Amino acid sequence: MTVSKTAAVDAAKAPRPRKEPAEGQPESTALQMGELSELLGYSLKRAQLRIFEDFLRCVAPLQLTPAQFSVLLLLDKNPGRNQTEIANTLGILRPNFVAMLDGLESRDLCARIRSTNDRRSHILVLTDKGRAVLARAKKLVAAKHEARLNELLGPANRAALLSMLATIAREF
Amino acid sequence: MTVSKTAAVDAAKAPRPRKEPAEGQPESTALQMGELSELLGYSLKRAQLRIFEDFLRCVAPLQLTPAQFSVLLLLDKNPGRNQTEIANTLGILRPNFVAMLDGLESRDLCARIRSTNDRRSHILVLTDKGRAVLARAKKLVAAKHEARLNELLGPANRAALLSMLATIAREF
Repeated sequence: MTVSKTAAVDAAKAPRPRKEPAEGQPESTALQMGELSELLGYSLKRAQLRIFEDFLRCVAPLQLTPAQFSVLLLLDKNPGRNQTEIANTLGILRPNFVAMLDGLESRDLCARIRSTNDRRSHILVLTDKGRAVLARAKKLVAAKHEARLNELLGPANRAALLSMLATIAREF
Repeated sequence: MTVSKTAAVDAAKAPRPRKEPAEGQPESTALQMGELSELLGYSLKRAQLRIFEDFLRCVAPLQLTPAQFSVLLLLDKNPGRNQTEIANTLGILRPNFVAMLDGLESRDLCARIRSTNDRRSHILVLTDKGRAVLARAKKLVAAKHEARLNELLGPANRAALLSMLATIAREF
């Protein structure tokens, strides 16, 4: 397999949808999307990637991924639940979840405590630092990320979108 | 853009189906989702995962992932384009795209041909087998996957959803 370095550099620069070619650049017409633009799965994936990129940018000072943020939120609302309950609720596979917890624990954002009821099970709790980081993250997400989405779609459409996504996640 | 009230009401009921605990299993009450159920990114990810799972099941006889299907669709509509154009249009990072092409080429579904205009560049084409597999995949996706989504959401809601997702992918 041969891949030119120039092309690799170009691709790293522009992994996202094509912009108009700059003045003097060779013209390359946009591709025909065909059935792709009608595929719900494809559109969902593209929108989700955009939203995750923006999320990462908005909470960059705190270095939290969307998945880490969702774990912190859930631990805050459900203290004393075990690893399996949290992982299952979020739909995260166990090996991935264990790796994520290792990362959060090494940053002193959460702690695993051996359950007194079941010695094989670990209870998860937020640390004080975890609570503080979560509070800052929530503010950034609300003020920068969700507010812009709300502005883009309008509150009624945003609510309709959330509702349809929940229907798909629950019933499809 | 209008969205049926039924979908909105249904979706508000619950974020995800908790299964009843099996007979004899210790009861475990559902977790509080808190702000998570209001986060668009989280809902998008859950819906997208469900749709991808269903897609994989529907085209299981052909062993195609959603990303591979999108590549075949795009090659069919845009013969003679190079790797960079296809990868950029789909928003797939170059190393991932090269690995995916290796897989498709080893199954004789597409071929890389060195460009006569630019010897560093590879033109991508579907093989006859690639075209046949794509035709079968399109039928399975339309008849099993998209038809069920259409039934779940209704055509008007489905169109509204697609339109909002496109807005996010394009403008957010």
